Amino acid sequence: MFNKRVKIKELLTWEPKDQQVTVMGWVRTFRNNQFIALNDGSTNNNLQVVVELGKFDDELLKRITTSASLKVSGHVIPSLGKGQKLEVRGETIEILGDSDAEKYPLQPKKHSLEFLREIAHLRFRTNTFGSVFRIRHSLAFAIHKFYNEKGFVYMHTPIVTASDAEGAGEMFRVTTLPLDNPPRNEDGSVNFKEDFFGRSSNLTVSGQLEGELGATAFGEIYTFGPTFRAENSNTARHLAEFWMIEPEMAFCDLEDNMNLAEEFIKYIIKYAMEHNREDLEFLAQRLADEEKQLPQDKRSEMGLIEKLEFVVNNSFERITYTEAIDILLQSPAYKKKKFQYDVKWGIDMQSEHERYLVEKHFKKPVIVTNYPKDIKAFYMRQNDDGKTVAAMDILAPGIGEIVGGSQREERLDKLEQRMAEMHIPAEELWWYLDTRRFGTVPHAGFGLGFERIVQFVTGMGNIRDVIAFPRTPKNCEF
Amino acid sequence: MFNKRVKIKELLTWEPKDQQVTVMGWVRTFRNNQFIALNDGSTNNNLQVVVELGKFDDELLKRITTSASLKVSGHVIPSLGKGQKLEVRGETIEILGDSDAEKYPLQPKKHSLEFLREIAHLRFRTNTFGSVFRIRHSLAFAIHKFYNEKGFVYMHTPIVTASDAEGAGEMFRVTTLPLDNPPRNEDGSVNFKEDFFGRSSNLTVSGQLEGELGATAFGEIYTFGPTFRAENSNTARHLAEFWMIEPEMAFCDLEDNMNLAEEFIKYIIKYAMEHNREDLEFLAQRLADEEKQLPQDKRSEMGLIEKLEFVVNNSFERITYTEAIDILLQSPAYKKKKFQYDVKWGIDMQSEHERYLVEKHFKKPVIVTNYPKDIKAFYMRQNDDGKTVAAMDILAPGIGEIVGGSQREERLDKLEQRMAEMHIPAEELWWYLDTRRFGTVPHAGFGLGFERIVQFVTGMGNIRDVIAFPRTPKNCEF
Repeated sequence: MFNKRVKIKELLTWEPKDQQVTVMGWVRTFRNNQFIALNDGSTNNNLQVVVELGKFDDELLKRITTSASLKVSGHVIPSLGKGQKLEVRGETIEILGDSDAEKYPLQPKKHSLEFLREIAHLRFRTNTFGSVFRIRHSLAFAIHKFYNEKGFVYMHTPIVTASDAEGAGEMFRVTTLPLDNPPRNEDGSVNFKEDFFGRSSNLTVSGQLEGELGATAFGEIYTFGPTFRAENSNTARHLAEFWMIEPEMAFCDLEDNMNLAEEFIKYIIKYAMEHNREDLEFLAQRLADEEKQLPQDKRSEMGLIEKLEFVVNNSFERITYTEAIDILLQSPAYKKKKFQYDVKWGIDMQSEHERYLVEKHFKKPVIVTNYPKDIKAFYMRQNDDGKTVAAMDILAPGIGEIVGGSQREERLDKLEQRMAEMHIPAEELWWYLDTRRFGTVPHAGFGLGFERIVQFVTGMGNIRDVIAFPRTPKNCEF
Repeated sequence: MFNKRVKIKELLTWEPKDQQVTVMGWVRTFRNNQFIALNDGSTNNNLQVVVELGKFDDELLKRITTSASLKVSGHVIPSLGKGQKLEVRGETIEILGDSDAEKYPLQPKKHSLEFLREIAHLRFRTNTFGSVFRIRHSLAFAIHKFYNEKGFVYMHTPIVTASDAEGAGEMFRVTTLPLDNPPRNEDGSVNFKEDFFGRSSNLTVSGQLEGELGATAFGEIYTFGPTFRAENSNTARHLAEFWMIEPEMAFCDLEDNMNLAEEFIKYIIKYAMEHNREDLEFLAQRLADEEKQLPQDKRSEMGLIEKLEFVVNNSFERITYTEAIDILLQSPAYKKKKFQYDVKWGIDMQSEHERYLVEKHFKKPVIVTNYPKDIKAFYMRQNDDGKTVAAMDILAPGIGEIVGGSQREERLDKLEQRMAEMHIPAEELWWYLDTRRFGTVPHAGFGLGFERIVQFVTGMGNIRDVIAFPRTPKNCEF
């Protein structure tokens, strides 16, 4: 048995009483041939290991370089140094793995986020990414905890799917056919009957349709899995592969749906604030430092933690799409022609419009409801006005759309009619329509982009910095 | 706000004291125009709703058919019926959705599992699948709870990957190139530079290699995500798409690894036993009934719950591969030539051999360690004997291999040498090798097939019955 170590996060909470301990980790710095800052990834805080002068030979001391891995045993004693109440007297020091300081890409200095993306396999070892990914972990756990406590069933909806009916975006093909010479039909087209699944298949863009099948049996379900978009969007907001949470509730209308989404978002943010205080403080400072480079009017009005507290403690604004358009039309920005894109009832609001509503007008998260049916998916419940559907999007400051959801159309005739209008092939979705045939119920759900909420909580500006190994156009490294 | 219902699972725990409640759910049966068995998916147990005679007109009563959805309000009163302490007096009954009893595929009778697979979108509404998927949920939650409590960081490793170096099995290609006419290089080969990711890319077979990158920064991480095999295996044990949990620990050797895996499996089984007692009892009875059809010697020696209790309360057997081969060579089965496949040191044990060890010889889960290096992956740590690696597989009764893991080769020179021998392209795995260059540490990990453990806990014989929508050769429906 190798591992009898104490994790540094735990050790740092102890009262120093000369306890004998073993710690293991990676060297962050080694000062004056005497003070090792040791980190094991459990926290950004390093443990100070004091090397007793004269006890170790120079050959060993020379190998204590940045990123070398050590096993250290010794006693826990009060520290005289600033900012730490304890340290470990290094009585035995074993080098587990050397690290050539000249070749190690992560020097103890500030690196750009762009550079760190190129060495994404090592960036977890920095304070910034240590904090981001520990918070990502906490948010993921809080999501499961929230739904488990409410009695939702966690469903793994399929990743590979033959259903291309939703039309939510461009899709990746999944195939085992040889690309250089696929089997063909007599008319020259590719014969997908010969493909692995016996038909053309893709990576899922959403688990919602299958989620509805679960909700109409278990009452309430949620998914938490990867989803894909083959869009050629090289922006700080888009990934080709990202994780989504999609709860789906039977016996639920638009208002229930909004209430759940708001409660959910507040719950997971609060969880991170309670469990990752140090990491959030580190990232808040990082963001404040970063914003110092910006002109005054581009800086955030609130610090990161202030912003999160504000979101947790205040109600989200709830307005209809029609009200949102009216606000935009009355805005100084519109009157001064500051919007690049036109504003009128019926538009799919652009990022600039959403940001105006959220960041300038309301200065808080906003839930926009009842969008025009022509810009929304076929499955959304049609309102009595004949023009809108019972959709709801949640817009967050600095991020834009973070949740998209709706009450679902549970009336078979209305659904079939809308599918026909939108050229959605009903025969491919026979199983989806069955839920409306056999004991249909009012139901609703939404999707939360996981990376978007991680961005919101960590304050990271680029979505590529909140997922371990981002997948984007022309980029599939690691 | 539509949803002010009480869930039936909760309601059934109340003391009946004439409380006014609203419940919603689907009709399972309607007896004597008087007793509705209502189910809302929160439990297999139905709520009895008593229809007051003469209060409702015949038109409404006729619509109370199997699978129709209802909203019922009334008072909670003690029940005179057998097997239930309370019932609800149905004072108002609203039909939310009708269900044509003649067309509804799920009649109130026993259906075969094969038939139910064809209507996987409705099978959640049966008691068997209700129980299976609520247990699946509990196991998933227990997994997150276990690792969260231990301070592991949950990592989402990539689903789409360009790394095809592991050689763990056949892979699915992910592409946006047009199959009927892909762009080509001058030599006629397909030009993958034009593909979405700028190179040939696939669905992942394992998140391990990326998991190691996380472990060598955070200390301990785990993954829980979908993995894929494009193997043409039409068996009760294989899926093309399945979920896997892969913990990876720095400062960890083979023994630590075994200890963690055993503790982990026991923890999640215990969690399900504590949280899903009714569902387990239902499935235990189902299995017992099923086994009554079998000849005596094919029946399980223990019932489902007995088996789980036994696993939780007893140590897993730990033997080396060499010992396992010796046991097989000495077995009556071998001597009587009952094994189809040959037994000798060096073989990759077949299912019949694993089952003999687990089901006949030890009658408990067995951890087999130190396999011949030639039948294991390049990244497993080489033992000093020059012949074996520090691998460990856990074999479970009735399932076979449920965990595969190893200590990883942390020594750069040994790893590079083994990669060269096995023709693994080192240049593609530069990032993997970097972890051995910069502060390498002893580390280990394993993979648990999620559907295999769900099978083990639920007693379901076919892996297609423990995942919502199974993906298998020629099958990608729903």
